[in-house]
Amino acid sequence: MEDTRVYLSEREMPRQWYNVQADLPKPLPPPLHPGTLKPLGPQDMAPIFPMGLIEQEMSQQRWIDIPVEVLSIYKLWRPTPLCRAKRLEEALKTPARIYYKNEGVSPAGSHKPNTAVAQAYYNKKEGVKRLSTETGAGQWGSALAFATNVFGLECQVYMVKVSYQQKPYRRMMMETWGASVTPSPSDQTDAGRMILAQDPNSPGSLGIAISEAVNDAVQREDTRYSLGSVLNHVILHQTIVGLETKAQLKKIGVEPDVLIGCVGGGSNFAGFCFPFFPEKKQGKKIRFLGVEPTACPTLTKGLYRYDFGDTAQMAPIVKMYTLGHTFVPPGIHAGGLRYHGDAPLLCLLYDEGFVEAVAYPQNPVFEAAMLFARTEGTIPAPETAHAIRAAVDEAIKCREKKEEKVIVFNFSGHGHFDLASYDMFLSKKLEDYEYPDEKVREALQHLPDVKG
Amino acid sequence: MEDTRVYLSEREMPRQWYNVQADLPKPLPPPLHPGTLKPLGPQDMAPIFPMGLIEQEMSQQRWIDIPVEVLSIYKLWRPTPLCRAKRLEEALKTPARIYYKNEGVSPAGSHKPNTAVAQAYYNKKEGVKRLSTETGAGQWGSALAFATNVFGLECQVYMVKVSYQQKPYRRMMMETWGASVTPSPSDQTDAGRMILAQDPNSPGSLGIAISEAVNDAVQREDTRYSLGSVLNHVILHQTIVGLETKAQLKKIGVEPDVLIGCVGGGSNFAGFCFPFFPEKKQGKKIRFLGVEPTACPTLTKGLYRYDFGDTAQMAPIVKMYTLGHTFVPPGIHAGGLRYHGDAPLLCLLYDEGFVEAVAYPQNPVFEAAMLFARTEGTIPAPETAHAIRAAVDEAIKCREKKEEKVIVFNFSGHGHFDLASYDMFLSKKLEDYEYPDEKVREALQHLPDVKG
Repeated sequence: MEDTRVYLSEREMPRQWYNVQADLPKPLPPPLHPGTLKPLGPQDMAPIFPMGLIEQEMSQQRWIDIPVEVLSIYKLWRPTPLCRAKRLEEALKTPARIYYKNEGVSPAGSHKPNTAVAQAYYNKKEGVKRLSTETGAGQWGSALAFATNVFGLECQVYMVKVSYQQKPYRRMMMETWGASVTPSPSDQTDAGRMILAQDPNSPGSLGIAISEAVNDAVQREDTRYSLGSVLNHVILHQTIVGLETKAQLKKIGVEPDVLIGCVGGGSNFAGFCFPFFPEKKQGKKIRFLGVEPTACPTLTKGLYRYDFGDTAQMAPIVKMYTLGHTFVPPGIHAGGLRYHGDAPLLCLLYDEGFVEAVAYPQNPVFEAAMLFARTEGTIPAPETAHAIRAAVDEAIKCREKKEEKVIVFNFSGHGHFDLASYDMFLSKKLEDYEYPDEKVREALQHLPDVKG
Repeated sequence: MEDTRVYLSEREMPRQWYNVQADLPKPLPPPLHPGTLKPLGPQDMAPIFPMGLIEQEMSQQRWIDIPVEVLSIYKLWRPTPLCRAKRLEEALKTPARIYYKNEGVSPAGSHKPNTAVAQAYYNKKEGVKRLSTETGAGQWGSALAFATNVFGLECQVYMVKVSYQQKPYRRMMMETWGASVTPSPSDQTDAGRMILAQDPNSPGSLGIAISEAVNDAVQREDTRYSLGSVLNHVILHQTIVGLETKAQLKKIGVEPDVLIGCVGGGSNFAGFCFPFFPEKKQGKKIRFLGVEPTACPTLTKGLYRYDFGDTAQMAPIVKMYTLGHTFVPPGIHAGGLRYHGDAPLLCLLYDEGFVEAVAYPQNPVFEAAMLFARTEGTIPAPETAHAIRAAVDEAIKCREKKEEKVIVFNFSGHGHFDLASYDMFLSKKLEDYEYPDEKVREALQHLPDVKG
C-alpha cells in the first residue's frame, strides 16, 4: 500500500529552478518606470535589488542553477513531504485521490523561505549587509528574518502598525531570528515621517510599509530591498515546490488531473504549477486552478491592464490582472491574499487560458479549513484554506460524477499564528465579503494611461 | 553523504510498543490507595480508566501490539524524522555528531499525541463517550482534543484559569478540534465549586484542574479521565519515539553515545530512552541523560519515597523521586516541567543508576534555544530547550576532549505558542530560579508515612 507521505532524498532534490519565461506562448510585456513610462532597465533596479536577482528577473534561460549555499539551507526542511489526504477523502466519500504538498514544515511555517533564502544569498554574495522589507501579518517578514539570519545579514522589517500591536507573536518570531521590527509608519524614513506628519495616529497599511522599506534601501548604501511575491525571480525560486511535487508524483506513478493553490501575489501557486507547464503547453490534460477570496477577486473580476504595483505609485507599472492600485480590500483573515494585482507571469498565462480561477467568501473557506484540521490534523493558514476549499469542491464533483481524479494542492502554510480567525469562525463572527462590481468598476477607472 | 533527515517508511514503523516493566532490575513498588494505603487493584482504577489501559498499566509483557486503528492515526505524522543538526555542530565547532528526533511535527506540535491517540482509542473501544482532562499551558489538552476528535469522542478540558485568560491560542486550538474548554476552577464540578466558594477569584492551579477532571469522570457514567504523563501506560505509548529512533540510527549505521530528553513527568524522556534499555542492562555503553529545571529539581534534589501524586491527596500514592506533594515551583516558562514528582518507572531506573540527571536555570536554557533557532531554524518549546542545553554542553565537552561522540536528543515540541517567553528572554526579563535546599527539605517533611 502507498505510504501517507512521499519523501524525496536529498539526492533527488532539484538542483535547478525552472524559468517559465523560456516557455511563454508570447512575450511578457515589460515593466515600465512609474515616472517615465519607459521600459525598466537593470540600472533602474540596481539601487533596490542586487544584480544576481535582476538578471533572474529578466532571464529567458529555462533552467537556472540553485547555488549550493542555498541548497544547503533548503536542506534544513526540504524536500518537503507530499501527503495523501486519505482521511479527508474518506470524510468526503469521494473516489478522487487528494494529495497536498506540505510547505508548512519550513522554519517560518510557509513556502516564503524558498525565495527569502535565495534573495538573502544573492544579496550577501554582492556585499550587501542589510535587507529591508515590509510585512503585514508577518509571514513574509519572518521568512526573511530567518533567511538573513542564516547568511549573517541584518534585517529591517517595517510591520504595519496595527498588526504590530495586535499580532505580537509574529513580531517575536522575527526578533528571535535577530531581525529589527519597526511599527510602520515610523520616524525612521522620509516616507514614514510624511505620513506621521499628516496623521500621528495612523494605523499603517501595507502600502505605507512598502514605501518605508524601499525608502530605507534607497537611502542606505549597505541596504537592499526584498519583496516576497509578484516578481519573476520570486516565482522562479518557488518552482522548487512544483519540481519536487512532480518528482514525488512520478515516484508513486501518479498523474495529476488538477493542481490547486491560493493566489495572493501568486508566487506559491505559480511556483507549484509552472513546472508542469511545458507538458500542458504540449497538450497534456492538466488543470491549473488558482483560488482567491471574493473580497479581493483579482483574477475573477479584475482586468488585464498596465497598473501601478503599489498604492503610492512608486513601484513599477506592470501588466497584470488588477482591481486598480487604489483598491482597498476589506480586512479578511487571509491577509496574504489582499493584493490588488497578481504576478505578471501568472496573469499572462491566465489571460492565455492556461490557468483557471475561482473565488470564495470566508465562511466556506473556514468550513473547509475545519474539515481539514479535523480529518488530517494539521491546522491550515486561512490563505491555504482557500486552496483546500477548492480541492474539497473538486473532490465532491468527482463523487457526483463518479470520477477517480487526482487532485493535488499546495499546502502553503500552517495556521498556528492565525487561531484568532478560527475563534471568530467558531463564534460565527466572520463576514462573507463579496466585493461589489460597481466598486471594482470604479477602482478600474484609475488605471494609468498606458497602452499594452 | 548522509541526508540531513533520516525517514522511515510506514512499513518500517514499529508495530509494538516496548514495555520496560519486563526488564526492570527489581520489581516496581506498587501504587497505593490514598485512603487505605493498600496496593491498588484494577477495580480501584476502573471508574477512572478503561480496562485496556489498566491492563497496560500493570502488564509485565515485553512487547504490546499497537492496534491498527492507532497506527492509522499515527501515520498522519509518524514515523517522525530523525534530523542531523549539522549547522548547530558547526556553530559549536564540535567533533561530536548531534541528532534530534523531531516530535514537533505532530498536529498538536509535541510528542503528546502518541499517548492521547492510544488513550482515546482504548476508551472508544470500551464504549466510553467522553474524556475529561486538565491542562496547564495547553500542550496536553490540545493533544487530547485532537485525539478524541479523530475517534469521535467528546472532550472536556479543564484549563487553569490564568492560562485560559493569558494563552487564548492553545484554547482556540483545542476548540478547533472540537473540545469544550472550561476555565478552572469552574462551577461544573463539586471540586471546582468548593474552591470557588472559598475564593471566587481563584486563578486556578494544575492541582485544582486535575481534581475537577477526575471529579467530572467519576460523576458521569459515560466519561473517563485521561492523564498525559507519569503513568506506566503513557510511557509505554511513548516508546514509539525511541523505537523509531533506534531503527533510524540503525539505518544509517550510527551508534549513540548519549540520549538526552527533558523531564517533567518523564514520559517523553522515558519513551525516548527505554527502548535502548535492554542493551544498556546487558552492559552496552550508552548514557541516558534527563534534564530538568533548577526551579523544579525533582531528580537532582528530590528523595525516592512514597508520595501523593497530587496536591489534594486524591491521587494514588506512588514511589518516586519527589520534592513533596506540597511543593509549588516558581512560574517558569517551561510549564510542562513543573511537576513535583516523576514517573515511577523512570525513578526506579534513576535510583538504580541507569539514568543520569542534570538541572539548568532558565537563561542558559533559552540561550541554547536561541542558538538552535538561529542555526537549525526551528524554534523549540522551552521544555525541549532544556534537552538542547544539555546536548550543547555535551557537544562542548566533546570539543574540549576532542571526542567524536554521537549525541541524540528528543525534540519534544516546537515553541510556536511560547514566543512570549522568547520575548522575555530577549528583553532580559527572565529570572534564574534555583530552588533553595531548605525549601526542598521542608517540603519533604510532608511525605506520607509509608515504608517502601
